Amino acid sequence: MDQIQQLSSGLDTIWVVLTAAMILLMEGGFALLEAGFVRQKNAVSIIMKVFVDIAFGALIFYFMGFALMYGKDAGGIIGTSGFFMGGDLTHIHLNISHETYWLFQCAFVIAVISIVSGAVAERINFRAYILYTIAMTGLIYPIAGHWVWAVGGWLGKLGMVDFAGSAVIHALGGFSALAAAVIIGPRIGKFSANGSANIVPPSNLPLASVGAFILWFGWFGFNSGSTLSATNTSIGHIAVTTMLAAAAGSATCILFTMMRYRKADPPMVINGALAGLVGITAGCAFVSDAAAIFIGALCGIAMVYTTEILEAKQIDDPVGAFPVHGISGSIGTLAVGLFAQPDAIREGTAGLFYGGGFGLLGVQALGLVTVCIWGFALTWGVMKLINLIVPLRVSRDEELVGLDVGSHGVPAYSQEDGFLDLEQLKKG
Amino acid sequence: MDQIQQLSSGLDTIWVVLTAAMILLMEGGFALLEAGFVRQKNAVSIIMKVFVDIAFGALIFYFMGFALMYGKDAGGIIGTSGFFMGGDLTHIHLNISHETYWLFQCAFVIAVISIVSGAVAERINFRAYILYTIAMTGLIYPIAGHWVWAVGGWLGKLGMVDFAGSAVIHALGGFSALAAAVIIGPRIGKFSANGSANIVPPSNLPLASVGAFILWFGWFGFNSGSTLSATNTSIGHIAVTTMLAAAAGSATCILFTMMRYRKADPPMVINGALAGLVGITAGCAFVSDAAAIFIGALCGIAMVYTTEILEAKQIDDPVGAFPVHGISGSIGTLAVGLFAQPDAIREGTAGLFYGGGFGLLGVQALGLVTVCIWGFALTWGVMKLINLIVPLRVSRDEELVGLDVGSHGVPAYSQEDGFLDLEQLKKG
Amino acid sequence: MDQIQQLSSGLDTIWVVLTAAMILLMEGGFALLEAGFVRQKNAVSIIMKVFVDIAFGALIFYFMGFALMYGKDAGGIIGTSGFFMGGDLTHIHLNISHETYWLFQCAFVIAVISIVSGAVAERINFRAYILYTIAMTGLIYPIAGHWVWAVGGWLGKLGMVDFAGSAVIHALGGFSALAAAVIIGPRIGKFSANGSANIVPPSNLPLASVGAFILWFGWFGFNSGSTLSATNTSIGHIAVTTMLAAAAGSATCILFTMMRYRKADPPMVINGALAGLVGITAGCAFVSDAAAIFIGALCGIAMVYTTEILEAKQIDDPVGAFPVHGISGSIGTLAVGLFAQPDAIREGTAGLFYGGGFGLLGVQALGLVTVCIWGFALTWGVMKLINLIVPLRVSRDEELVGLDVGSHGVPAYSQEDGFLDLEQLKKG
Repeated sequence: MDQIQQLSSGLDTIWVVLTAAMILLMEGGFALLEAGFVRQKNAVSIIMKVFVDIAFGALIFYFMGFALMYGKDAGGIIGTSGFFMGGDLTHIHLNISHETYWLFQCAFVIAVISIVSGAVAERINFRAYILYTIAMTGLIYPIAGHWVWAVGGWLGKLGMVDFAGSAVIHALGGFSALAAAVIIGPRIGKFSANGSANIVPPSNLPLASVGAFILWFGWFGFNSGSTLSATNTSIGHIAVTTMLAAAAGSATCILFTMMRYRKADPPMVINGALAGLVGITAGCAFVSDAAAIFIGALCGIAMVYTTEILEAKQIDDPVGAFPVHGISGSIGTLAVGLFAQPDAIREGTAGLFYGGGFGLLGVQALGLVTVCIWGFALTWGVMKLINLIVPLRVSRDEELVGLDVGSHGVPAYSQEDGFLDLEQLKKG
Repeated sequence: MDQIQQLSSGLDTIWVVLTAAMILLMEGGFALLEAGFVRQKNAVSIIMKVFVDIAFGALIFYFMGFALMYGKDAGGIIGTSGFFMGGDLTHIHLNISHETYWLFQCAFVIAVISIVSGAVAERINFRAYILYTIAMTGLIYPIAGHWVWAVGGWLGKLGMVDFAGSAVIHALGGFSALAAAVIIGPRIGKFSANGSANIVPPSNLPLASVGAFILWFGWFGFNSGSTLSATNTSIGHIAVTTMLAAAAGSATCILFTMMRYRKADPPMVINGALAGLVGITAGCAFVSDAAAIFIGALCGIAMVYTTEILEAKQIDDPVGAFPVHGISGSIGTLAVGLFAQPDAIREGTAGLFYGGGFGLLGVQALGLVTVCIWGFALTWGVMKLINLIVPLRVSRDEELVGLDVGSHGVPAYSQEDGFLDLEQLKKG
Repeated sequence: MDQIQQLSSGLDTIWVVLTAAMILLMEGGFALLEAGFVRQKNAVSIIMKVFVDIAFGALIFYFMGFALMYGKDAGGIIGTSGFFMGGDLTHIHLNISHETYWLFQCAFVIAVISIVSGAVAERINFRAYILYTIAMTGLIYPIAGHWVWAVGGWLGKLGMVDFAGSAVIHALGGFSALAAAVIIGPRIGKFSANGSANIVPPSNLPLASVGAFILWFGWFGFNSGSTLSATNTSIGHIAVTTMLAAAAGSATCILFTMMRYRKADPPMVINGALAGLVGITAGCAFVSDAAAIFIGALCGIAMVYTTEILEAKQIDDPVGAFPVHGISGSIGTLAVGLFAQPDAIREGTAGLFYGGGFGLLGVQALGLVTVCIWGFALTWGVMKLINLIVPLRVSRDEELVGLDVGSHGVPAYSQEDGFLDLEQLKKG
């Protein structure tokens, strides 16, 4: 029997480590996606922000984020132990070690902050971004996450369900991204004086596309890995609903943009796949295959409309962080309240369309609104605060020349085939 | 004992889900490979086709392809249950759920259609491609696959063996690609009036190379995952033969092109690795390491010659889909009949070189020819049919300007550093 | 009980196969990293070297490298069985097959040779590189590896510990890279007559960055997979120290270059993450989380300084192979002697800072120096020998025009949108 327990915890451990690694690879996906969508002159600067996400995000979440999120509960509001992975964590009962659990959660927090990085692309000051990353990964996300996912969190106790984070990760990240985009303002030239939106083609669509495929791959880790146990019988179903929702989001955007713009629009197709993935994240374990297809398709179309609405409202979100994560995350969270199959979540609970009444839907809505307001408001406040320390935005000159050379001293791409003699340059 | 069964099915489930995810990541590999090989002006359009593969492929295979392939057998010819994953699937006995099985098979069908996408690159009409994708993933591949892999399929009953699909996936895909390339005709300017082939350098070889590495990675999932069980004792051997064949295909092409062209030719080296991988796919579980090296090397050389023959015959296959998948897939299928080790497939069966006589080789040849003719003929017929609905090929003007701007309204790469004022553009 | 054994070996097998595949994907990471760091005119040539690494490396390691490394020990110096995976390997006791073990070790040897490829980028002759690859993967690395890792190896018997290869892989690779860089000399124009270093911006930083993310992902396989068993209870801890060290290396380089150069320097940030990963490789299973952070940070800073020192000494290491692998590998190897936690390695052993005295530190230092000298000296000798057969370096003309066109007849990137009529070109 000992050997069986050993096998069981070994199996769960490699499952969580492998899926955590897949989620962390999503940072490579975010980097490609964002570098491909922005202008060439800002491609490195956006990738440097992804490095900030993963480097500072991991450390801050180790120092304090994990403790506030999963530490011993105080009043349903906040965790209080587990700083530096020390202290009392006996309330967490898992078949994997606390460290392994930390790694998986760490991959999640890094995804959240990466969502925001897209919305502030091409204009945020690098130092300000580091400060915001610390706030998001050490405070904003952990507290909201505590409410829903921690032992004793108040939203979780009310019955809110968010399997892999449509609300906690994506809606929170998306609404934070919206606040950041609004507060920092549009890029120079994005909107004409009369308010019409101007466009610029993405600098590298092949890179952006491959970013989406890597994200899609990582999502199997994101959703299926959230079981935290390899013997959870939902794993196959989760992977299938994830696949179908992504396919539906992408296929819908292909057909929808062919009808609406007469051309299948590549950025929309890319974001359509991601919208489907975001949308199924909350309910992947609870809804049927058909519902997954419906949710994915709906998120794709909602993403297209939301993108148009943002432009009309002169909000500049360069890579579509809000339409993809904020809106689809919201749809996905509410969809659980509509489509959850009887007893899939827990005995006696079902979504509205399966005879469960408005109970689940109500708590999903309450949780969603709470999390979105929290993300938006805290980001707003923190950004205002940061602005007192260091300007949120690069100078006009730096924005025009591009952040790559401006903030990092090097262009993303170079065709130089000889060396630059620095001594000569200084003299001349 | 219950706990052991739980561990066992959990173990098999995560094995199949993880390897399925690896195979699906191969779509990122195909996207990079093809976008790198084609001209810059068509790089996005080929990636959009990969999105069609994965999005429409998954949905259509869910709606009907899986049913025709793995549903309850009718006459050895076709499956009849399992539409929308419903109906009677009790004849499928696995240690994983039917849904998990579907995911793995879905990853396969998407690979098949992606093979064809390369051969029609730079000239096929996007709408026509969507229709062809539906036919391939809903009909052509599922039926051929039924013959070989389904319970009751006639080729399987005859004793045909194709472990992970040299015939069912690659030869079928490759011969379909050949039919498509012939029917749609060469790209404008590919052949001079006197019939000589003209060349164009690939637009982005680093991308194409990395595509190959991602495909190589995914192939470990493709071949090893085809055990569908983590306790299959062949897994290690399969992974090793896969590695050795790929290395042999690549090393051979390095040396062979150094002798033949005096320069190690990058596209050939890339395709040589893939040819080795395709070639070992049928026999990875049954042949020795030495045979794997031989098969890989042979496939590499055959790929080079086939590429030259296609050019001489004025057949335009822009990324080498037929040489890589059609020819290597055929070699690999036959190689099982030559190199299968005694009792590796089943008690009493061996390849020709191991004293098994011509029996196995004969049935492999029969199955191969059947599958290739099926793929070629059906693709030919379906393409002719599609051509009645929507032109197979883009207009001459669109082909010259490139499909990225022509079909999708956006270039793959842009160095624009400011925004385009659409209002101004319309006025001016 | 039989079924438990079956589960156990199945579990270990898929763990090792999956992590080996992740390590092999690191070749895609190396390819991107190096192609992004070098000049555009050499981007394909460096990727072709990565193909040589993986193709020739795998075959040679199969033919002889594995035997010299893990074959039956002779005098603590060298292995003597296992050529072509045949012969007596009964001294290797594992819960996985010998072939599965080979695959994992094969992924390691390919990483070693890839380290060297970066240091000789943009100027080494392709044929010479193939010969060196054969020497490294068939001889230099296997023998050093035998000393530390094989049953009976003399350094291992002395008590040297190198969990996943800070010394055996990275310090060996890094010091070999240093020897190669010195012997082959700097690129034309890298240093002015007065000795000052000239610079050239990397050709494609987004590619290089994504290469780093892929390497980071693969490192979870590299370090955690080195347990060779999924029920090893250190797996979670290993993954966490790996993550923290990488984050610390990267975060430190962000902050340190902001202070030192006033700009967060992208190539340094990329290499900082890698330096942290290299540094934790030896001790990932033995040191605390806090030590992992310290080691990662130290490696990051040491990498920056070493890069500057190499430039001052007019040693041209285009992608920083020595600072990243040689120095961080050395730090990591010694760090085990300082930070190993009591009884983590074996009963009664601890690092200096945990009361273990200088014993462990001494043997780590001895082993490190031995391995570094071995790598440097053998590479020096082998390169001199190769130079007698084929020139180590391309001609001046070829270097100026670039190795892509010079050695491989094709540029990395092309914007050509029509075909080149070869017949016309020959006439004209």
